Amino acid sequence: MGKTLTYKILENHLISGTLTPGEEIAIKVDQTLTQDSTGTMVYLQLEAMGVKEIKTELSVAYIDHNTLQTGFENADDHEFIKTVAEKYGVIFSKPGNGICHQLHLENFSVPGKTLIGSDSHTPTSGGMGVLAIGTGGLDVAAGMASGRYYLKAPKVVNIQLKGSLNPWVSAKDVILYILKKLTVKGGVGKVIEYSGEGVKSLSLTDRATITNMGAELGATTSIFPSDEITYEFLKANGRENNWTPLAADEDAVYDEVIEIDLSDIATMTAKPHSPDNVDAVETVKGLKIDQVLIGSCTNSSYKDLMKAAAILKGNKVHPDVSLGISPGSSTILKMLADNGALSTFIAAGARILECSCGPCIGMGQSPKTDSVSLRTFNRNFCGRSGTKSADVYLVSPETAAISAVKGFFEDPVTLGEDIIIKEPTTYDISDNYFVRAKDIDATVVMGPNIKPFPTKEGLTDALEGKVVLKTGDNITTDDIMPSNAKLLPYRSNIPHLSKFCFHALDEKLWEKCELHGGGFIIGGDNYGQGSSREHAALVPLYLGIKAILAKSFARIHKANLINSGIIPLEFIDPNDYVSIGEIDELEIKDVKAALVSKDTIEINNKTKNLTIKAKFVGSQRDVDILLLGGYLNYIKMNLGE
Amino acid sequence: MGKTLTYKILENHLISGTLTPGEEIAIKVDQTLTQDSTGTMVYLQLEAMGVKEIKTELSVAYIDHNTLQTGFENADDHEFIKTVAEKYGVIFSKPGNGICHQLHLENFSVPGKTLIGSDSHTPTSGGMGVLAIGTGGLDVAAGMASGRYYLKAPKVVNIQLKGSLNPWVSAKDVILYILKKLTVKGGVGKVIEYSGEGVKSLSLTDRATITNMGAELGATTSIFPSDEITYEFLKANGRENNWTPLAADEDAVYDEVIEIDLSDIATMTAKPHSPDNVDAVETVKGLKIDQVLIGSCTNSSYKDLMKAAAILKGNKVHPDVSLGISPGSSTILKMLADNGALSTFIAAGARILECSCGPCIGMGQSPKTDSVSLRTFNRNFCGRSGTKSADVYLVSPETAAISAVKGFFEDPVTLGEDIIIKEPTTYDISDNYFVRAKDIDATVVMGPNIKPFPTKEGLTDALEGKVVLKTGDNITTDDIMPSNAKLLPYRSNIPHLSKFCFHALDEKLWEKCELHGGGFIIGGDNYGQGSSREHAALVPLYLGIKAILAKSFARIHKANLINSGIIPLEFIDPNDYVSIGEIDELEIKDVKAALVSKDTIEINNKTKNLTIKAKFVGSQRDVDILLLGGYLNYIKMNLGE
Repeated sequence: MGKTLTYKILENHLISGTLTPGEEIAIKVDQTLTQDSTGTMVYLQLEAMGVKEIKTELSVAYIDHNTLQTGFENADDHEFIKTVAEKYGVIFSKPGNGICHQLHLENFSVPGKTLIGSDSHTPTSGGMGVLAIGTGGLDVAAGMASGRYYLKAPKVVNIQLKGSLNPWVSAKDVILYILKKLTVKGGVGKVIEYSGEGVKSLSLTDRATITNMGAELGATTSIFPSDEITYEFLKANGRENNWTPLAADEDAVYDEVIEIDLSDIATMTAKPHSPDNVDAVETVKGLKIDQVLIGSCTNSSYKDLMKAAAILKGNKVHPDVSLGISPGSSTILKMLADNGALSTFIAAGARILECSCGPCIGMGQSPKTDSVSLRTFNRNFCGRSGTKSADVYLVSPETAAISAVKGFFEDPVTLGEDIIIKEPTTYDISDNYFVRAKDIDATVVMGPNIKPFPTKEGLTDALEGKVVLKTGDNITTDDIMPSNAKLLPYRSNIPHLSKFCFHALDEKLWEKCELHGGGFIIGGDNYGQGSSREHAALVPLYLGIKAILAKSFARIHKANLINSGIIPLEFIDPNDYVSIGEIDELEIKDVKAALVSKDTIEINNKTKNLTIKAKFVGSQRDVDILLLGGYLNYIKMNLGE
Repeated sequence: MGKTLTYKILENHLISGTLTPGEEIAIKVDQTLTQDSTGTMVYLQLEAMGVKEIKTELSVAYIDHNTLQTGFENADDHEFIKTVAEKYGVIFSKPGNGICHQLHLENFSVPGKTLIGSDSHTPTSGGMGVLAIGTGGLDVAAGMASGRYYLKAPKVVNIQLKGSLNPWVSAKDVILYILKKLTVKGGVGKVIEYSGEGVKSLSLTDRATITNMGAELGATTSIFPSDEITYEFLKANGRENNWTPLAADEDAVYDEVIEIDLSDIATMTAKPHSPDNVDAVETVKGLKIDQVLIGSCTNSSYKDLMKAAAILKGNKVHPDVSLGISPGSSTILKMLADNGALSTFIAAGARILECSCGPCIGMGQSPKTDSVSLRTFNRNFCGRSGTKSADVYLVSPETAAISAVKGFFEDPVTLGEDIIIKEPTTYDISDNYFVRAKDIDATVVMGPNIKPFPTKEGLTDALEGKVVLKTGDNITTDDIMPSNAKLLPYRSNIPHLSKFCFHALDEKLWEKCELHGGGFIIGGDNYGQGSSREHAALVPLYLGIKAILAKSFARIHKANLINSGIIPLEFIDPNDYVSIGEIDELEIKDVKAALVSKDTIEINNKTKNLTIKAKFVGSQRDVDILLLGGYLNYIKMNLGE
């Protein structure tokens, strides 16, 4: 029986477990990456584990999130990460270098390797045939410490691409089309593996755009084969030695096969407020717009920006529109400066922003009240832009650029003959933003805003408490722990952040938790989708949340909850959801025994005098972690075994 | 008797009064400029005045301060200013275009014209022979409404420049040298007029650097003659028609003459925490540094950045240093992109920031705790960087660039033979960031964070209240109303800002004012130096401050206090300062009569049972304004007379 590319890589890296979908396995971690907003916590955890040497082939610490620096906190975090990176021999990428995923593609991604990263868009490297998984920060710390990563062997969905894209339709439209088809829950527990003749028509960074936004499908990761196009990209970056051809076997058996004819795809947009609320650009043509932003790890490649420049050439940004451009890397910015594209942007009246995540994570460029903002980014959750009343539409760079000129939503197909951007044969890679050093005696500098992460004792036999919050479906980690320019500087200060937990749903949740000594949260379907934000688990841990009872959980967030020692419980009968209200008093007796024996867990609703049945779906290792009160305790106990 | 250049321009623009130093005069306002952080209030005031047409030849509304946009507030302010500009025919400069003063030089400054601007560095245009004065925002609103500006006819100090600069010594070193000589109080009530053969050796933007930081001397403004160099700059910007040769008469009589031999000047730095705490770079050579920032209205010209690029060429920014570059205008950024200098910056590992004021006003790039930051900016007040514990040194672009490479304070003279930067013969001016429209029926859009400015009733006969604060000397407007990334978005929301008034001296001042119904502030020498920030008067007005009794006042702030209806009183005997304490109960009887008759004002300290004598130093018009409770009331009453 032929193998999928995914399972070939898993097999090569298998440390323990059986390669059967749903079974927990441990794989060897070749590479890790962190960004700064999750990274501070990762390295605090690594420090707490007391390891001397990291066990990965390569680990990189990028600074790309908190680059505005509106107080000392950001720069202190950068310094902490820089010094701790020096201690462990982690490569440090200075602020200004660009966005971790674009930089990793250019500098470090190797086909066939495994990569885990404390950022949900780590699958970007899947565009290069890397098995690249976004995880909670603690998994990355553990990955560095132990060289292992635990996951459930995934199902593999094959998306067979045939045909080629119509003029002005781009990779962003492809992934938006897939999001429309599969929704934000469509990828849960699955790896999306691309194949077919259509793959050949996609550049390497096109592929990376598609795997990047596979995160929005909830997929474990997405992966493309490694072929001549992969080779050419690596060669252009001076890394042809890193190339290996990789593909699934011809007769590979997949859990599911989806055929997509690229020529069926029109220009698409994700309407407010979800990446899967997708429709054709045609349906919003003419809508007046206020802001356009081109950039982010999804769409800030050389080709993306060159295409936008080609559209803007000789044109002027509409007077009512603010167009911002944040290139994906310093290398790309330099190439655009050298080839005149940057000059074109400036001549058109665009705002040139720093090479960083920037507005994609709400770090600046918040649009005005009640505005319409077109963004080439990956998420358009309500309020993520920093402006609650704004309507954010996700679009391709082509749609973004032409709309910026027109002042209203426009379809680039109206431009007539397509403009073809040639892939550069040489990327002008410079090493000057990277700091490579190793010094185990390096002094790790911790500024005053950097507080230890919360820890927890082992699990008690019975859990008791109030329902402090009941939510609807599709709660995002942005809902749980908002990420905006005002809060991002406090990523290493959990006590401060806790005051903003679920702020949009209940501003006083932290006070309620203080009053009741923590308690339970009731959730709907797909609880914890979105960003990999570990803080969405660490903050509830700090607030004393003992368990979350939901209809279903998003993968990364569920792992983060377990890692934090918070039990993610699922309703056996989802209809029971309606019978629990806020401030109901719940009790779970003998929870340890039930977890160990994998029995049904009975939750006694003392207020309503009802018993609700729930289950914990997880591995033996997950149970062990919960019993010990979290992953850090577990790692400490298991390191060196 | 020969005339000074200053008095020639004043004479050409005189509307009322006598041209005798110290006498109040009214002059015709040719041009105004606003930036966004003061501008919102200016246009709110203009609206409140109910005028139909503005009376200036040219008015420009720049967006350069609040460009980070970490919430909807900034973009709402931009939209408000854009729409109000459209209504009155004010030219609107979009965010991303650059810094008002650099843009004004490139696009609008005309030798011999008068310019008032709601930014203390408006004198930048003095480098082009403009009589350019930084004022409170209300003066700008009144200037637009009435075409008039009131000021005291200044003394004129002539700085005669001879010789030429040594290699690697630049205009920034000249003005730092002058600041060392004259101090931050040295220019009060004076215009600094430059002349002498040394002028010829300075480029137009060199001259603008010098007049720009004349603001730090406390000068009314600074001015250079208009000569062939001025002509060449205007020609390069396609505006040679705007040129007129201008100079003082050969036999002009000045109030004071200072001779400076340019060849006596070494590379200089202003040490923490004042722009006049100046010493030679030699004295700090070798000091380890953490951050370098090149930019601001003082030093972000083409020549400044090209010189920095020449030093960085082929070099790498030190791994421990974060080097940020914010070009002064989109035109300069485009020219740097086109000629390869931008590429040089990126290759060296510099962070390319947006064309805006940015970190100079604490808007981003706050350095880490306890760091040393070298900046080519104009102010290094404690905490202005956003990091209280940081030591900020003001330096030239040359010193900044070489130090960024070395990782420690280095003197550029160690570089050997100087690099000469040719002035461009053509500036690549684009009009695409300017919006020029006039539509008196335009709808002015006011977002939810834009609150009406505080108003006041006419003055009462007696003033009574507590001393709510007593300060030392040289209080800056930054001390009074801190300006940082967190507060700047609230420039149009006085109630919110009031909670941060004098925050570093007394966090609870606003509560004290609430408790006591406002009261009095006791100040030392040079009260209110620094930025022209009108909010440093509007916020005390909102808090109920009735009068400020100080040893002396900085010019712009004093005018702002009068405009707000707060009486600036000066001790007749400065030794009385020691006899007043906080929470003392003061009473001033018959204050209206004393102001009108210009009598000594007796302040009864009821707590200490003492009488202190004070004076109000101001014009009849100032008295009229105070009696009416502020300038807005005065303008409303006088418009159309």
